[in-house]
Amino acid sequence: MSHDTTAPALGVGMVGYAFMGAAHSQGWRTAARVFDLPLHPVMAAVCGRDEDKVATAARKLGWAATETDWRRLITRDDVQLVDVCTPGDSHAEIAVAALEAGKHVLCEKPLANTVAEAEAMADAAARARERGQLAMVGFNYRRVPALAYARELIARGRLGALRHVRVTYLQDWLVDPEFPLAWRMQREKAGSGALGDLGAHIVDLAQFLTGEPLVGVSAQTETFVKERPLPSAAAGLSGAAAGGGERGPVTVDDAALFTGRTSSGALASFEVSRMASGRKNALSVELNGEAGSLAFDLERLNELEFHDHAEPAETAGFRRILVTEPEHPYLEAWWPPGHGLGYEHTFVHQARDLVHAIAAGAQPAPSFADGLQVQRVLAAVEESAEKNAVFTPVAQSDEA
Amino acid sequence: MSHDTTAPALGVGMVGYAFMGAAHSQGWRTAARVFDLPLHPVMAAVCGRDEDKVATAARKLGWAATETDWRRLITRDDVQLVDVCTPGDSHAEIAVAALEAGKHVLCEKPLANTVAEAEAMADAAARARERGQLAMVGFNYRRVPALAYARELIARGRLGALRHVRVTYLQDWLVDPEFPLAWRMQREKAGSGALGDLGAHIVDLAQFLTGEPLVGVSAQTETFVKERPLPSAAAGLSGAAAGGGERGPVTVDDAALFTGRTSSGALASFEVSRMASGRKNALSVELNGEAGSLAFDLERLNELEFHDHAEPAETAGFRRILVTEPEHPYLEAWWPPGHGLGYEHTFVHQARDLVHAIAAGAQPAPSFADGLQVQRVLAAVEESAEKNAVFTPVAQSDEA
Amino acid sequence: MSHDTTAPALGVGMVGYAFMGAAHSQGWRTAARVFDLPLHPVMAAVCGRDEDKVATAARKLGWAATETDWRRLITRDDVQLVDVCTPGDSHAEIAVAALEAGKHVLCEKPLANTVAEAEAMADAAARARERGQLAMVGFNYRRVPALAYARELIARGRLGALRHVRVTYLQDWLVDPEFPLAWRMQREKAGSGALGDLGAHIVDLAQFLTGEPLVGVSAQTETFVKERPLPSAAAGLSGAAAGGGERGPVTVDDAALFTGRTSSGALASFEVSRMASGRKNALSVELNGEAGSLAFDLERLNELEFHDHAEPAETAGFRRILVTEPEHPYLEAWWPPGHGLGYEHTFVHQARDLVHAIAAGAQPAPSFADGLQVQRVLAAVEESAEKNAVFTPVAQSDEA
Amino acid sequence: MSHDTTAPALGVGMVGYAFMGAAHSQGWRTAARVFDLPLHPVMAAVCGRDEDKVATAARKLGWAATETDWRRLITRDDVQLVDVCTPGDSHAEIAVAALEAGKHVLCEKPLANTVAEAEAMADAAARARERGQLAMVGFNYRRVPALAYARELIARGRLGALRHVRVTYLQDWLVDPEFPLAWRMQREKAGSGALGDLGAHIVDLAQFLTGEPLVGVSAQTETFVKERPLPSAAAGLSGAAAGGGERGPVTVDDAALFTGRTSSGALASFEVSRMASGRKNALSVELNGEAGSLAFDLERLNELEFHDHAEPAETAGFRRILVTEPEHPYLEAWWPPGHGLGYEHTFVHQARDLVHAIAAGAQPAPSFADGLQVQRVLAAVEESAEKNAVFTPVAQSDEA
Repeated sequence: MSHDTTAPALGVGMVGYAFMGAAHSQGWRTAARVFDLPLHPVMAAVCGRDEDKVATAARKLGWAATETDWRRLITRDDVQLVDVCTPGDSHAEIAVAALEAGKHVLCEKPLANTVAEAEAMADAAARARERGQLAMVGFNYRRVPALAYARELIARGRLGALRHVRVTYLQDWLVDPEFPLAWRMQREKAGSGALGDLGAHIVDLAQFLTGEPLVGVSAQTETFVKERPLPSAAAGLSGAAAGGGERGPVTVDDAALFTGRTSSGALASFEVSRMASGRKNALSVELNGEAGSLAFDLERLNELEFHDHAEPAETAGFRRILVTEPEHPYLEAWWPPGHGLGYEHTFVHQARDLVHAIAAGAQPAPSFADGLQVQRVLAAVEESAEKNAVFTPVAQSDEA
Repeated sequence: MSHDTTAPALGVGMVGYAFMGAAHSQGWRTAARVFDLPLHPVMAAVCGRDEDKVATAARKLGWAATETDWRRLITRDDVQLVDVCTPGDSHAEIAVAALEAGKHVLCEKPLANTVAEAEAMADAAARARERGQLAMVGFNYRRVPALAYARELIARGRLGALRHVRVTYLQDWLVDPEFPLAWRMQREKAGSGALGDLGAHIVDLAQFLTGEPLVGVSAQTETFVKERPLPSAAAGLSGAAAGGGERGPVTVDDAALFTGRTSSGALASFEVSRMASGRKNALSVELNGEAGSLAFDLERLNELEFHDHAEPAETAGFRRILVTEPEHPYLEAWWPPGHGLGYEHTFVHQARDLVHAIAAGAQPAPSFADGLQVQRVLAAVEESAEKNAVFTPVAQSDEA
Repeated sequence: MSHDTTAPALGVGMVGYAFMGAAHSQGWRTAARVFDLPLHPVMAAVCGRDEDKVATAARKLGWAATETDWRRLITRDDVQLVDVCTPGDSHAEIAVAALEAGKHVLCEKPLANTVAEAEAMADAAARARERGQLAMVGFNYRRVPALAYARELIARGRLGALRHVRVTYLQDWLVDPEFPLAWRMQREKAGSGALGDLGAHIVDLAQFLTGEPLVGVSAQTETFVKERPLPSAAAGLSGAAAGGGERGPVTVDDAALFTGRTSSGALASFEVSRMASGRKNALSVELNGEAGSLAFDLERLNELEFHDHAEPAETAGFRRILVTEPEHPYLEAWWPPGHGLGYEHTFVHQARDLVHAIAAGAQPAPSFADGLQVQRVLAAVEESAEKNAVFTPVAQSDEA
Repeated sequence: MSHDTTAPALGVGMVGYAFMGAAHSQGWRTAARVFDLPLHPVMAAVCGRDEDKVATAARKLGWAATETDWRRLITRDDVQLVDVCTPGDSHAEIAVAALEAGKHVLCEKPLANTVAEAEAMADAAARARERGQLAMVGFNYRRVPALAYARELIARGRLGALRHVRVTYLQDWLVDPEFPLAWRMQREKAGSGALGDLGAHIVDLAQFLTGEPLVGVSAQTETFVKERPLPSAAAGLSGAAAGGGERGPVTVDDAALFTGRTSSGALASFEVSRMASGRKNALSVELNGEAGSLAFDLERLNELEFHDHAEPAETAGFRRILVTEPEHPYLEAWWPPGHGLGYEHTFVHQARDLVHAIAAGAQPAPSFADGLQVQRVLAAVEESAEKNAVFTPVAQSDEA
C-alpha cells in the first residue's frame, strides 16, 4: 500500500499472518479508506518464520516487506506500531520487547497464557506509557457497533441498577470425537481451551458493558472428549483414524460454565463451549437492569434488542434496533441505514480507534491492565473449578 | 357440569380456587370435550374457607357443590380425585390425608415447602399406590406439546450424548421496588422466592427432558430489594408509599443462579428471576448433544427448534418446528396444523393424562417421588448458596 | 351445561358440528367461565342431519339436546341465538329463516357464496334489527388480542396516514397433487377456493384494521393442480390412486394474488394460497403509516410488532409487544403476563362480545353488512381475474 | 495500490465516486486480498468532473490517478476495465463508448433509464463480445452468499415446481414530507423512483433465483407526497421549510406494487417503497415450490431459511441456515463458520467473479441482456400502471 494521503504515516509491523493476521490486515488496509484518520497506517512489514510463506502472505495481504525474526521487525525504522497476532504463548515476550524498543503495541487476545505474564505485560505497558508508547489488547468485539452502542446506553443510565448479566459463547467445531488433536487442545501451547479462547472475550465484554469488574466466580469446566486422534494419524488414515490411528490426551477444557458477581452486586453467568452442536459463533449477551434490558447475538451482529422499562406496559417490548444509523458508533463512515456490517469490520474499527489514540497520545482501551483483569478472572475460574466450584475472589488490578 | 356421556364418571374435588384453581377448572371442564377419555371428569365440589367466595367461584368456574373444610371435601362420596391447588405450606397435610382417605390426588407444584414434607408425601403416595390410589404432581409444562415432543426426540436418541442443558425462567413483576410485600415474599409462607416458584419448574423440566437426575449443584441466590412497602401501607397510600408507609423485610430470594451436573455428566445451568425487566414468562430451554440440539421458549410455546447434527453442514440449521401437527403429542384432538395452543392447554392435557392413568391403574408422571427429587435439588441449591457456592450433592430418591 | 349462575340465560342452538362447530362449542362452553357476562350462554341444542352422529357430537361437545332439521332448531323456545356453522352454501337460507323466526344469529364466515345471497342476508339483518334481533358474522381473527389491540393503536392515530397494507394467508395442505378432490375444491359447493376460505379473512382484517373499505382490486387467481384423485378412488386404493384411480377436475382456485386501494388511498396487497409449502396457517399482516408501523403473524399470535416513527432513530426499531398484559383487549380475564393464548380463544372472545351486544341491544361487529362488503371485494377479485387483472371497483355497501 | 503480486494486472478505471463509487472501490481493493485471482485488479484511475473533489476521493479511496473527463479515462492505456458508477442517465453513453474503445465494462444498475438505451447497450455488448470485450451489470445482491446459495438449491431442484415468488424491498427515508426534493425524485434525472432504484434489484433477483423471465405484470404505482421543499429552501430555512420555503413537484413514484407470472406459471408479487416506516433496507424474498421453500431477509443477510417438504411433518420446519460454511458460495476465502459478512462484501464478490470471467474470456452474469430484460419488466410495470393495472406482457430479449 503506497502512502497516498496527506496525513502523516504510521508504520505498522505485524507478527503472524494466519486467521488473526488476515483479519488485522483487512483492518489496516481499510481503516483509512473509510474513516478520516489523523495518521495514515502504512503496512510496512509482516513477520513469520518461514521465508517463503511469509513472502506469499505479504503479497496476498498487502505488506510491503517481510521479516523472519520478530526481533528484527520491532527495530525497523519504518515501524512505529507492532501488531502481535501470534499464539498466546509468545505474546508476553514479543509485546514487552516491542514496547521496550519504543514501539506502540497492539496485542491479540487473550493478553497472555498466565497471570504472571499478563502482569509483566501490564507493567511494561505502564512504563512505556510514560515514554509515550501506547499498548492495547485486541478484544475486537467491543468494536461491534451494536455492542459499542450498548455500552453507550448503559453508561447513560438507560438500564439503571444492573441485576443480571448473562453471556454465552458457543461453538461446535469439536462435537465430532474424531476431530484431530490440534495444538489448541494442548495445555502447554494453548494455556486453556474454550475458556481462554472464548471465555476471554465474554469476560471482557461483561466488564466492558457493565463498566464493572467481576469480583468473584464459581466454576465448572469439562473435557468431554478426553482423547482424540493425533493429527498425523488422522491425516495419514484419511478419515479411518478410528481403525488403528494413535490418539493423544486432550489437556484443555472443551467447555466452561461459571457464575459471578460484578462489583455492584449483579448476578453474572457465563458459558463457553466448543461442543454446542448447531451453534457456530453464538456469542449472546443479555443484561437486565431496573430501568431496562439489552440483548445481543453475534450471529445477528447488526441488531441490538432494547427494552425500556419506563414504556407503558401495553406498548412495551424488546425493540430490534438495526444498529446501522449514522448516529450509531462507527456508522457515520459506512453505508446507508440497513446496509449491515460483518465480522471483520471490528478490526477496521479497532485500527481506527488505535490510530486516533496514538495521534492524541491518549491511552487506548482496552489497555493491558484491562487484559490483565480478564486474565485474573480466567485464573479464578480455573481455581474455582479445581476447588469444587467454591466462590473464588478475583484479584483486582490496581489500575482497573 | 352434568354427566352427559357414556363413560363412567370420575368425581373431582378441588381445594383452592385462585389462579391455579381457575386453570385446573379449565382443564377439568375441557378435557373430555376435546379428548376421548375412558372416565368422564365430573366437577363435583370445590373447597374454600370463605363460604360466599367459594360459592361465587363455584358458579363461575362450574363446580356443582362447595365445601368450606377440606377435611369434608376429601370424604365426599362423589369425589374420587382430590386436586390440591392451595399454597405450598398446606400441600403435605391435605394430600396425605386425601390419599389416606382413599382418594387419588393431583397436587400443584412445588410438591411441598420442605424436603421433609415432600418425603412424607412420597411415602404416603407409595403406600396409597398399593391400595390402588394414584398421586401426581402438577408440573404442567411437561404437557406443553413442544416439550413433550422434545422429550420424545431425546428418548429416541436424536440428540445423542448430552453435553449441555441450559434453562432459564425470567419474569419481571418485582422490578419496581415499590411493589408491595405480598405473602410470596415471606419465607414462612412461601418457603422460598423465585427458586421454589420458578426454579421448581425448570429443575423438573431439565430432569424430565434429559431423563436424568441432577447429581449436584453450585448456587448463588440474591434478594435485590431487601425491604418493600407493607401491602396495607401500599394500598392505603395510593402509590405514595415511599412518603411514609411502613416497610417490611423481604425474606425470600428475588433470583437464583445455579449450575449442576446430570447423572451422565452433562453441564447444566439454571437461572430464575422476578427482576429481569422485559421478560414476562420467559422459560427458555436449550439442550446440546453429540447428535443434535433443541431450543424452546415458553413465550412462543407452539414452536420447537431442532438442529440435526447429521445434516450436511451446508443445509444444516435450527429448524423451527410448529408443534401443531397431528403426529405431535396431544395435537390429534385439537385444531388443524398451524392453529396454536396456549398456556392453559397444559392443564387440559394434565387432566387427560391423569384420567388415563387412573383408568388404567398405572402410575402417572410426574409422581410424588419425582416431586421429591425436585425438592431435593432446591434444597441443595439453598445449601450451596449458604456455603459459598460449593458444589453440593443432591440426595437421590430411591425410586427416582 | 347446567345453568349454574345468577345471570339470565341465553339459549344457543348450533347448526353443524364439524371443525367450526367444535371451535364454537369451546367458545360457548368457556366464555362465562372466564368473563363476567350479563347473560349466561346455555348450550341448548345442536343440529345435524345424521341422528346418531349429532347425538355423539352433542355428548362430546356438551349440548343438551339435538335436532336433525334446522327448521325445527330455529323454532325451539329454549333457543334465542342460532349459531350457523354449516358450509357456505346454506348460510343464507338458515340465517335468514332464523332471523325471521325471531332469533339472533351468528353466522360463520364467509357470509355467503355469492353477493346476491349476502345482500339478502344483510337486508334480513337490517329488518331483524328493527325487531330487536341482532346478526353477526364470525370473522374470529378480529378477536385475536394482538389484532384487536392493533385496531386500537390505529384508531388512536399511532400509525398516522396509512401508506401500505400487506396481508397474506398461506397454507400448504394442497401441495401434494395426490391429495384427493374434496368438496372444498368444487365450485358448486365451496363457491371458491383459497379466495373464499382464506381471502375472506384477510379482506375483513384489512378493512377492520384500517377502518377503511377497499375501493378496488386487481387480481390473478390460479389452479396449479387441475385434476385430483376422486376421494373414493383415493380411499379405495390406499394411497395408490395414481395407479388407476379416477380423477376429477378442480373447479376452484388454489391461490389468489391481488392488490387494491383503501378509501384513503393506501396501497394494499393480498395473497392467499393452499400451496405454500412449509406455511401452515401463516396469516401475516403489515401496515405502514406516516407515524408508525405494525406487523403480525398468526403463527405467533400473542405478539404484535410496533414501530413508533417518532422515536429517535438511534433507539427506534420494531418492538415485540407480548399482547398478554391486563391492559390489552380480553386479557384482563385470562392469565398473568406472558402466559399466552391460542387459536380457539378467538371463539371465546367472539361469544363474549356477542353476548354483551345482545344484552345491550347494540349492533355487534362485524355485521352482516360488513360480511357483504367482504363478499363484494371477493366478487371484484374474481371479476378482475377474469378481465386480465384490470383494476375493478368494489361496489360499496350503503351501511359500511 | 501497488501491484504487489505475481498475477497479471487488470487496470480498472472508475467513473463516479459517490456511494456506489466507494462501495466498488472497497470491492476492487479487497478482492485480491481475500480470493486467489487470475488477474490482479489495479485501481488505475478514477474520474469526476470536479478536479479537487476527485483528487480527494482518489486519495481517500486509493486510486492512483484522476481524470475529469470520462472520454479520457476510457482511452487510458493502463485501464482495461471501465467501472460505471454514475447516475442512470449517463450509463448508456459511457458504457457504449467504453466498449467501443476496447474496454471491458462493469455498469451499475439499473442498466439504463429507458428500454431504448438498454437495447443499445445490449447491442453494443453483443458486438464487443465478438471482439473479446465483456460487459456486466452490477446487480450486486446476486452475490450475497445466501442468495447465491439459494440459486444453487433451486437449480438443483430442491424447491421442485415453483408456485409462488414473493419479493419486497422496503425503505423509509421519504416518510417525512419535509424531506427535500432531491434529484432522485425528479423523473428527468432519475427515470423513475422506488421502481427503478429498488424494483430493478428485486426483478433481477426474482429472475435470477427462479431462472425464469417474467412474462407479464399488473401494476399500481403511487406518489404519496406530491410536493416537497426544494433543497435550497429546505437548507436555508433550517427545518422551517413549511413556513414559507418553496416547494416543487415530485415527478417519480414513492412506491410500486405489482404482480406477475414467471415463464413456468408461478405467481409472483413485488412491492417497493421509500415510505415503509421502520423498514431500512428490507429486501425480503420467499419462494414456495412443490418440494420446498426458501426465505431471505437482507437485514439478516447471513441467513437463509429453507423448508424441505420431503421431511416428515413432525420434524419439518423452516431451518435457519447460517450461510457461513466453507461449502457455501464465496465463503471458502473468508472467516470461520458463524463469522458473518456485510453489505459491501457483495462488491468484493462482484469484482472476483468479473475478474475470473475476464481471465477466462467467458460472459459474466448478469449480462447487459439480463439488464435489458429487467428494464423491459420495469417498462411493462409503468405501462400497466397507466392502463388501470391491466396485465401487460413483457417483451422478451432474444438472448435472455
